[in-house]
Amino acid sequence: CTTKTDSRRRELMPPISDAMSSKGSVVLAYSGGLDTSCILRWLKKQDNDVIAYLVSIGQKEDFEETRKKALKLWVKKAFTEDVSRRVEIAQREGTKYVSHGTTGKGINQVQCELNCYWLAPQIKATDSWRMPEFYNLLKVRNDLMEYAKQLWIPILVTPKNLWSMDKNLMHISYEAAILENPKNQAPPVLYMKTQEAAKAPNTPDILEIEFKKGVPVKVTNVKDGITRQTSLELFMYLNEVAGKHGMGRIDIVENCFIGMKSRVIYQIPAGTIFNHTHLDIRAFTMDREVCKIKQNLGLKFAELVHTSFWHRPRCEFVHHCFAKSQERVKGKMQLSVFKGQVYILRWESPLSLFNQELMSMNVKVTAK
Amino acid sequence: CTTKTDSRRRELMPPISDAMSSKGSVVLAYSGGLDTSCILRWLKKQDNDVIAYLVSIGQKEDFEETRKKALKLWVKKAFTEDVSRRVEIAQREGTKYVSHGTTGKGINQVQCELNCYWLAPQIKATDSWRMPEFYNLLKVRNDLMEYAKQLWIPILVTPKNLWSMDKNLMHISYEAAILENPKNQAPPVLYMKTQEAAKAPNTPDILEIEFKKGVPVKVTNVKDGITRQTSLELFMYLNEVAGKHGMGRIDIVENCFIGMKSRVIYQIPAGTIFNHTHLDIRAFTMDREVCKIKQNLGLKFAELVHTSFWHRPRCEFVHHCFAKSQERVKGKMQLSVFKGQVYILRWESPLSLFNQELMSMNVKVTAK
Amino acid sequence: CTTKTDSRRRELMPPISDAMSSKGSVVLAYSGGLDTSCILRWLKKQDNDVIAYLVSIGQKEDFEETRKKALKLWVKKAFTEDVSRRVEIAQREGTKYVSHGTTGKGINQVQCELNCYWLAPQIKATDSWRMPEFYNLLKVRNDLMEYAKQLWIPILVTPKNLWSMDKNLMHISYEAAILENPKNQAPPVLYMKTQEAAKAPNTPDILEIEFKKGVPVKVTNVKDGITRQTSLELFMYLNEVAGKHGMGRIDIVENCFIGMKSRVIYQIPAGTIFNHTHLDIRAFTMDREVCKIKQNLGLKFAELVHTSFWHRPRCEFVHHCFAKSQERVKGKMQLSVFKGQVYILRWESPLSLFNQELMSMNVKVTAK
Amino acid sequence: CTTKTDSRRRELMPPISDAMSSKGSVVLAYSGGLDTSCILRWLKKQDNDVIAYLVSIGQKEDFEETRKKALKLWVKKAFTEDVSRRVEIAQREGTKYVSHGTTGKGINQVQCELNCYWLAPQIKATDSWRMPEFYNLLKVRNDLMEYAKQLWIPILVTPKNLWSMDKNLMHISYEAAILENPKNQAPPVLYMKTQEAAKAPNTPDILEIEFKKGVPVKVTNVKDGITRQTSLELFMYLNEVAGKHGMGRIDIVENCFIGMKSRVIYQIPAGTIFNHTHLDIRAFTMDREVCKIKQNLGLKFAELVHTSFWHRPRCEFVHHCFAKSQERVKGKMQLSVFKGQVYILRWESPLSLFNQELMSMNVKVTAK
Repeated sequence: CTTKTDSRRRELMPPISDAMSSKGSVVLAYSGGLDTSCILRWLKKQDNDVIAYLVSIGQKEDFEETRKKALKLWVKKAFTEDVSRRVEIAQREGTKYVSHGTTGKGINQVQCELNCYWLAPQIKATDSWRMPEFYNLLKVRNDLMEYAKQLWIPILVTPKNLWSMDKNLMHISYEAAILENPKNQAPPVLYMKTQEAAKAPNTPDILEIEFKKGVPVKVTNVKDGITRQTSLELFMYLNEVAGKHGMGRIDIVENCFIGMKSRVIYQIPAGTIFNHTHLDIRAFTMDREVCKIKQNLGLKFAELVHTSFWHRPRCEFVHHCFAKSQERVKGKMQLSVFKGQVYILRWESPLSLFNQELMSMNVKVTAK
Repeated sequence: CTTKTDSRRRELMPPISDAMSSKGSVVLAYSGGLDTSCILRWLKKQDNDVIAYLVSIGQKEDFEETRKKALKLWVKKAFTEDVSRRVEIAQREGTKYVSHGTTGKGINQVQCELNCYWLAPQIKATDSWRMPEFYNLLKVRNDLMEYAKQLWIPILVTPKNLWSMDKNLMHISYEAAILENPKNQAPPVLYMKTQEAAKAPNTPDILEIEFKKGVPVKVTNVKDGITRQTSLELFMYLNEVAGKHGMGRIDIVENCFIGMKSRVIYQIPAGTIFNHTHLDIRAFTMDREVCKIKQNLGLKFAELVHTSFWHRPRCEFVHHCFAKSQERVKGKMQLSVFKGQVYILRWESPLSLFNQELMSMNVKVTAK
Repeated sequence: CTTKTDSRRRELMPPISDAMSSKGSVVLAYSGGLDTSCILRWLKKQDNDVIAYLVSIGQKEDFEETRKKALKLWVKKAFTEDVSRRVEIAQREGTKYVSHGTTGKGINQVQCELNCYWLAPQIKATDSWRMPEFYNLLKVRNDLMEYAKQLWIPILVTPKNLWSMDKNLMHISYEAAILENPKNQAPPVLYMKTQEAAKAPNTPDILEIEFKKGVPVKVTNVKDGITRQTSLELFMYLNEVAGKHGMGRIDIVENCFIGMKSRVIYQIPAGTIFNHTHLDIRAFTMDREVCKIKQNLGLKFAELVHTSFWHRPRCEFVHHCFAKSQERVKGKMQLSVFKGQVYILRWESPLSLFNQELMSMNVKVTAK
Repeated sequence: CTTKTDSRRRELMPPISDAMSSKGSVVLAYSGGLDTSCILRWLKKQDNDVIAYLVSIGQKEDFEETRKKALKLWVKKAFTEDVSRRVEIAQREGTKYVSHGTTGKGINQVQCELNCYWLAPQIKATDSWRMPEFYNLLKVRNDLMEYAKQLWIPILVTPKNLWSMDKNLMHISYEAAILENPKNQAPPVLYMKTQEAAKAPNTPDILEIEFKKGVPVKVTNVKDGITRQTSLELFMYLNEVAGKHGMGRIDIVENCFIGMKSRVIYQIPAGTIFNHTHLDIRAFTMDREVCKIKQNLGLKFAELVHTSFWHRPRCEFVHHCFAKSQERVKGKMQLSVFKGQVYILRWESPLSLFNQELMSMNVKVTAK
């Protein structure tokens, strides 16, 4: 498929840059998809030099492919870099504008722009979807496809896989198209990371997860003795085991930032296990009220990250509080993973607040 | 077993009341168990007339048995009544004291006493476990058993079922004894209300639950067309179906009121389904922020009920807010129940805030 | 001064409309000030028909003056109307755009646009400050003045009163210009609504405020017997009395929506008295936990109103909860107002939760 | 007065200890007042050895007087010590019981007992007010006085000053007796720490308070150049200046722990200034959301301290979060203190988040 696209792309490559002299340059967060490709071409048509920045957030993607695609669309530069603060590129490249393809539907647009502003107030974030000239031209997805055709942009999107996908180490999520209708069930083909419970193994896997300062540091499969120890390996191994047992499927109607509802299908296998297990190890080792305060801070933190305040002091502050709250969260949890469920089998911690003798009903009288 | 106990009880019945003349009377919340039986006898020994009140909270118990037992222990009166406010009995019977068997380990003792005080400040709640004369005599469970033997109290407790059990329509829970040790798994015999996932049916049940004003009003089993409509029937039917599929097992380390940890095993089959389904119907029909506010009030409400403020204005207030928040929560959820998991299959509501057309990616441009 | 401006305006009136044929029409929230006048003229220059809507929020303004000014700047229509939902005008007038003069500094811009979108997604809110063509032309206030001069816009702003003012029944606030520097004290001339404490009367006024369902329904000046009973009269009378005694001056560094700080000088005379008094009457009549929950909802409500969610279900919901919480808030507070301070003199309520007999130390023993 | 009491005390001293042989010993938190003196005597009558512990919390009291009084009432030992954990004394002295005079009206009783239990579960806290033998004997204050007379306890309480007082470095508070009636104004004689506004100086004091990490480290009186630098001196000096200007009078109806209301009159001169000033310096230097989170944690902290969890991990955790939040709170505030009011005059901080250039309306266009 990629080869075929490549050949098609050669044919489609615009014969000549449409902007011989530039009125300025703009950094565009470029994914290679339909939307950002159209924005790229449109920015060029407006006589801008475009610098394509290929954002890496841990997804396994063929950046070289995307880079080539960008270059064929006449960008000035195209590169991937581990730069979480996009404006740094703009500063280094000396541009005054950054552009992006996020839409007004979700939080992303506000996120992008507030963050750029916070990090470098002198650089301007522009949003093509908000410019009348752009959105009057490209109102619906079919317009985009037509525009792409006109401007020699190769497209891979076909009607049958018209849903939107997002993935990284933590999750895969799907939305849009046939998923929009909450009466439609998700097609089984979507569930790439998690087995259907009915087809999952008929015997559980028994895992032992060890925590230090609230962080999982070791996973052992009790049956076969397999262990994993670094964060990345741990996570990948748990994704595999949990996925095999059908853990972490969520089909949900969510709230979008501006008040609408969206239906999203998630698969979060390892994350779901961590969530359960961490809940239990912290109940075992943390003071009740510290737990509650930490939980409220967690909700706040999720909101801050979701509304894009990662680079702000508020996130650093909450992180610091988290770290303090997790100091005592140390121990081993044993659990069974089976048919999409986690069952806690036992708790063990040198810092447990569980006082077996004290709790026992045999000493309840003196306990008072 | 009951018969055997009965015969034994006859033998054990004290030949004569140990208090011929009373210095006053006290209402005792009496369960028939070891603790309250000892308290009853001890109160008698202190020259009190005891009125035994057999509390009914929906559990299926043999109240007649318990009543007879109380009478054999020389209470003045013993009766069951649907009186959630225990002090009303004290007021009617003209006693100045109410007594109870709750211990200082959990919240119950504070609950009992604060509530009595709130409802009728002139009536005094007494707690035998806090009286030196009582707890010096009966420090551990073995002392209680010995005391019971001395005072002719029939006992059913044996070492092999030494855990404590609590049950009602919503749940069964177990704690104490071998469960105290968090390294011990719960014995399978405990799981009376929920099938083990491995032994649960290999095909799901498909249910449709209909909500009005946030409350489930109808359950339909899509395969066989069975429907249930009153609250009680709904709940009982869902307990049965959910239990069959292994829903709602929770093995957890909890926080006790005074700061210790306790290990409890819960089974909450229908409740777990309601929890999932209500979460989804409300995400579908409620404004995002109303959801959040309601959720916070829910945590507050749980705390208020747990710390025994049911009869206070604060609970009435939160109830009122809940009712308002649920006005729009109307619709039908279809779900699959399988191997201990709930999978939402579809959402349907005349008051849905989900605007399919608006959300669709095909109109994202104009959506801005 | 107005006359002088008027004559100047006549001279300055553009000799001819600069747009003979319109490409569309747009509703502009027009204040008559420098910013919106420039936006008006700029919109005209872009070949838009402009409909000026003069927003009334209770301030005492010469709307006729502003209307005339708008007409002289060649608007198609100009009118004041009690329409809190600006998009209704756009809908009625058949325009597709609404425009406003709010800047990106505060929350206002996001507020305006989110609200328009919520109320009528098909109508587009435009923000001139975000259009490159506009802000490149008019980067700083001096540019605006220059532009105003070029386009025949009469201006009243002079360097010496360059701060920004906002006022309504509740408050007057000032910010910007010399107030920007937090080392500068506010010039005394700003304090139009509140007397300086040193010059305030040397004898207090004694007021009695009567509440029903949490709302002040009557104010009595105990010394001279003056009473006020309707909401508006009450408020105006308290503004007068409280202002005379120097109540409600606040000089504060606030947080702007996008993360910056702003220095603002407020005068809130009656509001400050209501705040104190309501706090005390509710402590006297409301259950403690209902108070706390209400207080948290109040913080949420303030945030919702500030971030412009007035027309959303979440505000209606919180309002409903408030109403319930205030049912018992009934009674009379007597207070002394003196030198910028409120002193509560006495509480009186038929629904008081204050049980004098119970609280008294003389009965503390039985109270337990 | 003291001398007179002394002589009276000699007369009243019981001629002989009423308990020749002790059944055990108990540590009593002893204040020298009516309540704890009666408890002391009653405990003796029950054949207990009593060890009187004179609690020091920074109040200026004549501990030697109180110690002598205790000894004359036949205690075994009487001493003051800076021991915030009262059970340590019980452990050291080898007693199994601690006793106290707090009543069931407020939170104190629960506080005392929960804390003792947490710190040393094997030691039992006893509350005389909850023992029928005690409260049946001493139902009202007049009974106590009678009992005191019978048992040779010297009493200072007279009808005319029958209110209860509590004081330390932070505040003086009054409640009970004629203050119980919320229609009664507080007698002027109570206001020992704060001048009446009408009699306060007619010129303000101008103070500069310097903060480091959120803590006031220096106070300068701008007019006379007086400075104070250690915590204690700072606080005492501000108490003096603020008191002179009538700062910090609060006459309030509060919520008691068990649900009743209580009327309390506070004087908190220095504390009120710190409260205002800290609010303003943190708004000037702290990120908005860190401020909000800190504020919520502050409410939680107040609740934890009030309900007596000072020695628990939860308080240590919140303290740690506070410290982190205050790292940037550095700078100088200038303020005017006048007639019971604080007016902030200027803010100054090397870590200010206030960006004057950015906020200025002159750059508002590019600010977007």
